[in-house]
Amino acid sequence: MSSAEGQSFASRPRIAVSIGDPNGVGPEVFLKCFCDDALTDQVELIPVGSRSVLQYYGSLLNINGNNDLLVEVDEPKGFKLTPGKLDSCAGALSMLCVERATDMCLSGEVQAMVTCPISKEAISAAGYDFPGHTEFIAERSEANSYLMMMVSGSLRMGLVTAHIPLGDVRAQITQAGIASTISVMADALRSDFGIEQPRIAVLGLNPHAGDGGVLGKEETDIIIPAIRSISGDTNVSGPFPADGFFGRAAWKSFDGVVAMYHDQGLVPFKTLSFGKGVNVTAGLPIVRTSPDHGTAFDIAGRGVAEEGSLHQAILLAAEITARRASA
Amino acid sequence: MSSAEGQSFASRPRIAVSIGDPNGVGPEVFLKCFCDDALTDQVELIPVGSRSVLQYYGSLLNINGNNDLLVEVDEPKGFKLTPGKLDSCAGALSMLCVERATDMCLSGEVQAMVTCPISKEAISAAGYDFPGHTEFIAERSEANSYLMMMVSGSLRMGLVTAHIPLGDVRAQITQAGIASTISVMADALRSDFGIEQPRIAVLGLNPHAGDGGVLGKEETDIIIPAIRSISGDTNVSGPFPADGFFGRAAWKSFDGVVAMYHDQGLVPFKTLSFGKGVNVTAGLPIVRTSPDHGTAFDIAGRGVAEEGSLHQAILLAAEITARRASA
Repeated sequence: MSSAEGQSFASRPRIAVSIGDPNGVGPEVFLKCFCDDALTDQVELIPVGSRSVLQYYGSLLNINGNNDLLVEVDEPKGFKLTPGKLDSCAGALSMLCVERATDMCLSGEVQAMVTCPISKEAISAAGYDFPGHTEFIAERSEANSYLMMMVSGSLRMGLVTAHIPLGDVRAQITQAGIASTISVMADALRSDFGIEQPRIAVLGLNPHAGDGGVLGKEETDIIIPAIRSISGDTNVSGPFPADGFFGRAAWKSFDGVVAMYHDQGLVPFKTLSFGKGVNVTAGLPIVRTSPDHGTAFDIAGRGVAEEGSLHQAILLAAEITARRASA
Repeated sequence: MSSAEGQSFASRPRIAVSIGDPNGVGPEVFLKCFCDDALTDQVELIPVGSRSVLQYYGSLLNINGNNDLLVEVDEPKGFKLTPGKLDSCAGALSMLCVERATDMCLSGEVQAMVTCPISKEAISAAGYDFPGHTEFIAERSEANSYLMMMVSGSLRMGLVTAHIPLGDVRAQITQAGIASTISVMADALRSDFGIEQPRIAVLGLNPHAGDGGVLGKEETDIIIPAIRSISGDTNVSGPFPADGFFGRAAWKSFDGVVAMYHDQGLVPFKTLSFGKGVNVTAGLPIVRTSPDHGTAFDIAGRGVAEEGSLHQAILLAAEITARRASA
């Protein structure tokens, strides 16, 4: 990349947006962002999807769904657009878009990618053996370790475990897993958020962070050793009792928060982010963000989906792109 | 109780306040409430504790710690007031106060009790074989089934499991436990909050409430049957994915929320209640509330403890007293 090109990227980055499951709200929230001039003044949005899908939702929303920038992905045989329907062909199409957008990032055609929601069930029915697109993107971009981080203003949250039954959480909490989560988060806070000496808070696993061992020993046996294993320019504190930590708004004193499991992190995150939360996959060689909602099949095709989270995801992708380019 | 007395109770109820662990913040927050004329215009506060303890904190805060209403409890042999110290004699004294206040409720001397924080470790060191004072009060008042409910405005939360290690939660979630939690909450919403047809939301145990079984089967096997077992004038819904439930502020559409474990309920509760949350023990024959903070040994004796939660606990006790009296 020449220096002149670098400048141009920083001023108006090219961002590929995979439009997600065609039967979900992805195409709709994309189009709502795409016709927001204040947003497209800052970023060049390149939709990656099927032309007929965008045209359908465009006419539904009375927005021009045609656009010259579209990177067209062929619909799989047998695909029929049906808003709200869980469908394997729709799942297959959604993943072809993710694949193409990832490749555009890897080749340097675009500087970042933003992914609209897919359906885990639909991609599974289509034969994709991945829990979600994050794992697919990580594998395709050859990332060693990566972490979904939820971001809303100065609240940045990472999870040690995520989409597993609550009864399996205890067994999956390991010193290595916690240390890796902290490290990937710390690196991302430096490279993508410009925080040279990040302050990271780690939550306890048990109520009251184990209350000195009375309510569980994982804090003493696993979490504290993991925290102590982190050296260098990262300031790691904890384990904190999760309820008091959010009750006292202690998260405001930290650059990142590590939660042990899904609801422990996502419940306060969503309570505090009011639908404007964004996901960013930390640790990838490429820049990838996504809105924090799902396909919302129940309201797909009705024109009522809110684009706030996708809007924020696009802005964050642009911000990270600029920060990495200036590093 | 004569009708005239009933009237007088309803207009200015007599409320016993056990002052908690003398080395914690209980005596301090009590005195701050006690000298609040706007509060004592509404309720008659009867402190239950040691005179020398109240005098000590009174002079510290420049508040008259002497008062004629004090129900004096003898200090155990060897007790020495030491703010901030975890001590078995202090624990014993705190429980003598709880015992006395409970008996005053049972005998009708007062209409309600409010308990300032005790230390579980201190009472255990003093030989009390109870996880906390709630269990002690329940046993002494011969309650069959009871439930700690957290209340902040219209957010009312009950837990199916509470102070146990996270790794034990799965095994403790039973259909009977969930059904009992829902029933006790429903009864309390009727008798103590005046809600004739309560709407109760039940959260899932697993991320995304199990996502149709992919992330756990407890929703299908345990929680849904428990919900279906409730009949009568209680409208029970769920199981809801906890993160979306709070993210969408769905709790505003319900009179009560049942969470499966400590952090799932307490994290959003404390995030939303801003230190003004109150506990009420539902299902007791007597009225008992408490502030939602602990002894806070780290700031005891420094005069900086905030009395907001105790203040709310006193007002809620008065409200419930009035509602039960008028039923």
